[in-house]
Amino acid sequence: MHVLALGSGQLARMMSLAGAPLNIELSAYDVSNGNIVHPLTQTVLGSGLDNAIANADVITAEFEHIPHHILDLCEQSGKFLPSTAAIKAGGDRRIEKALLDNAGVRNAKYAVINTREDFTHAIEHVGIPMVLKSALGGYDGKGQWRLKDAADIETIWLQMADCIASSDNQAIVAEQFVPFQREVSLVGARGKDGSIAVYPLAENVHTNGVLSLSTAIADQALQEQAQQMFAAVAGSLDYVGVLALEFFDLDGQLLVNEIAPRVHNSGHWTQQGAETCQFENHLRAVCGLPLGSTKLVRETAMINILGEDTLPAELLSMPGCHIHWYGKEKRAGRKMGHINVSGDYSGELQRRLCALAEVLDGEAFPAVHDFAKQFSA
Amino acid sequence: MHVLALGSGQLARMMSLAGAPLNIELSAYDVSNGNIVHPLTQTVLGSGLDNAIANADVITAEFEHIPHHILDLCEQSGKFLPSTAAIKAGGDRRIEKALLDNAGVRNAKYAVINTREDFTHAIEHVGIPMVLKSALGGYDGKGQWRLKDAADIETIWLQMADCIASSDNQAIVAEQFVPFQREVSLVGARGKDGSIAVYPLAENVHTNGVLSLSTAIADQALQEQAQQMFAAVAGSLDYVGVLALEFFDLDGQLLVNEIAPRVHNSGHWTQQGAETCQFENHLRAVCGLPLGSTKLVRETAMINILGEDTLPAELLSMPGCHIHWYGKEKRAGRKMGHINVSGDYSGELQRRLCALAEVLDGEAFPAVHDFAKQFSA
Repeated sequence: MHVLALGSGQLARMMSLAGAPLNIELSAYDVSNGNIVHPLTQTVLGSGLDNAIANADVITAEFEHIPHHILDLCEQSGKFLPSTAAIKAGGDRRIEKALLDNAGVRNAKYAVINTREDFTHAIEHVGIPMVLKSALGGYDGKGQWRLKDAADIETIWLQMADCIASSDNQAIVAEQFVPFQREVSLVGARGKDGSIAVYPLAENVHTNGVLSLSTAIADQALQEQAQQMFAAVAGSLDYVGVLALEFFDLDGQLLVNEIAPRVHNSGHWTQQGAETCQFENHLRAVCGLPLGSTKLVRETAMINILGEDTLPAELLSMPGCHIHWYGKEKRAGRKMGHINVSGDYSGELQRRLCALAEVLDGEAFPAVHDFAKQFSA
Repeated sequence: MHVLALGSGQLARMMSLAGAPLNIELSAYDVSNGNIVHPLTQTVLGSGLDNAIANADVITAEFEHIPHHILDLCEQSGKFLPSTAAIKAGGDRRIEKALLDNAGVRNAKYAVINTREDFTHAIEHVGIPMVLKSALGGYDGKGQWRLKDAADIETIWLQMADCIASSDNQAIVAEQFVPFQREVSLVGARGKDGSIAVYPLAENVHTNGVLSLSTAIADQALQEQAQQMFAAVAGSLDYVGVLALEFFDLDGQLLVNEIAPRVHNSGHWTQQGAETCQFENHLRAVCGLPLGSTKLVRETAMINILGEDTLPAELLSMPGCHIHWYGKEKRAGRKMGHINVSGDYSGELQRRLCALAEVLDGEAFPAVHDFAKQFSA
């Protein structure tokens, strides 16, 4: 079985590692230069999409910011999964919000802004405080503003107007600010036969808008809410593959913040913590194989490695720690890899996270240090 | 870090998968045709050893039947680990037996046979019944005879004489037959600093001389015996990397049957069952990194897939089952992949093995069926 991934970053790389034991081979289309590469070795295998589409049994995507003409080409082949509609929704906040409304899942009140007038109406309809996000291309906290004070309206408008003008079809989506207690996410898979298997919820900590710490949690009531919304969204898209829903937890009530139509950073913990990891389950789904068990097998947390290309050597001998590098050149803030840390029970995982805080740099890994501070008297 | 493996089969492939998350890249020297290939994709990266040796940070081996001039070339580079002496011992039963004697570890009484006269002396010294094994090139039950009855001496001698004449430096090693209750093996790693980390013993079932079922077991007394012998053998070789010792269990007393200076089929269960798998630990050792924990994290058994290239689809949805294909063309009896099956406790693993027997073909997987028969009334 040969799978072509649109995008050749770490998600395609980890799909390739997960697919190999199932004799599923991956190649990847580098959207930035049109090369077909092997996602593990980055060896150039060819150029241009046409041949790659012809040679693939299945085509999927590792990210959602893909030009629509490329998606359309893939869709015409009849081989693309999860569905180009899902990728387009993930890549355009307007489509995403409409999709959530249509699927009947709770999400923050919103309005779309193309003009200064729209902004005025959005302020009336959504209210202050509000969060403003670019409709296209925004991720990891980029292209976002917070309007807390009416005095800032004009300053923010100038920045937003620049953003709107910067590219075709750009807009801003204004959302009601949700005073959430925490962010959680649900990663799950839906098979071709409509079967669904979801992982336990993960609680996520972001630092400067980027995920830094993600921990599998057991909360039956939240899990049930999340699963229902997952089924509604995935079903409305006739989705096939792994899908992630990010939620705000507002006093035990979940609101969908956004969806990611792909394997997700908050599901990397499944490599050590779940019976079948998200990368394998995505491939199983798109290849028409039965989904694997999503059962938690070890209490696990994931720590992102951002902008660092070395770690203290002692980390390799710390029990329960697994390092996953992405083979990338170092750049400030870049996702370079992640650490999965597991324990046999949650107290052990806590202790191991605290032990990690002792050896990891506080500036590079603030979320782990914040976690450990809770337990120091 | 770039590691060159001598041999490009499934063991190099699985090293490559285990190395990727540590940013350890593998290439492999195909001894049969001199090509340098990527062990996962089998893409030809070049030809000839000289460049490959120059480009590697570390050189290691995935098997022991390597021409000595190639080993010598690698040794001269100063990059070869575990040690060419260990590989030579693994590839030559005469050297292996002498090594075991020198390390002071129990093994079956033996004699080396080059001539008909040697055979007569061996019969006197070792006694009947005896097992006769070619000194070079024998593995998975090939090049072996059993002498149980003096009437068979001449018939067996003719076959052995053919074998001795068939290649340079070939001989036969006669060994006392050991009426063992079972075969177990210990896989472990030794680091550059002399540190040792061994996995729990595995109990092994062979079918027609080939490993078919391997299960991690907990037996404190046997484990201690095995660890002592492991330390003696690995220490005597100043070994660096993963080493496997195969034992006969004779009423609770272990005798070393053979050593494998590499990752080993009876250690494949560590991919699901141990904190760090044998492939990662081999790479950690030869790259000079700290060894990873060898702790059992789940009760796990491994079933070899021999000569089959498909499995019943329902296997993919059986809890605790993980398939590992090697991406090979089907050939009768060939090691095509393996199944790891895990449970949270040993009773669960037993039930899952019995459930596997229900879906796996009895002729292709006799060991699993034999296992299940113990539990059917």
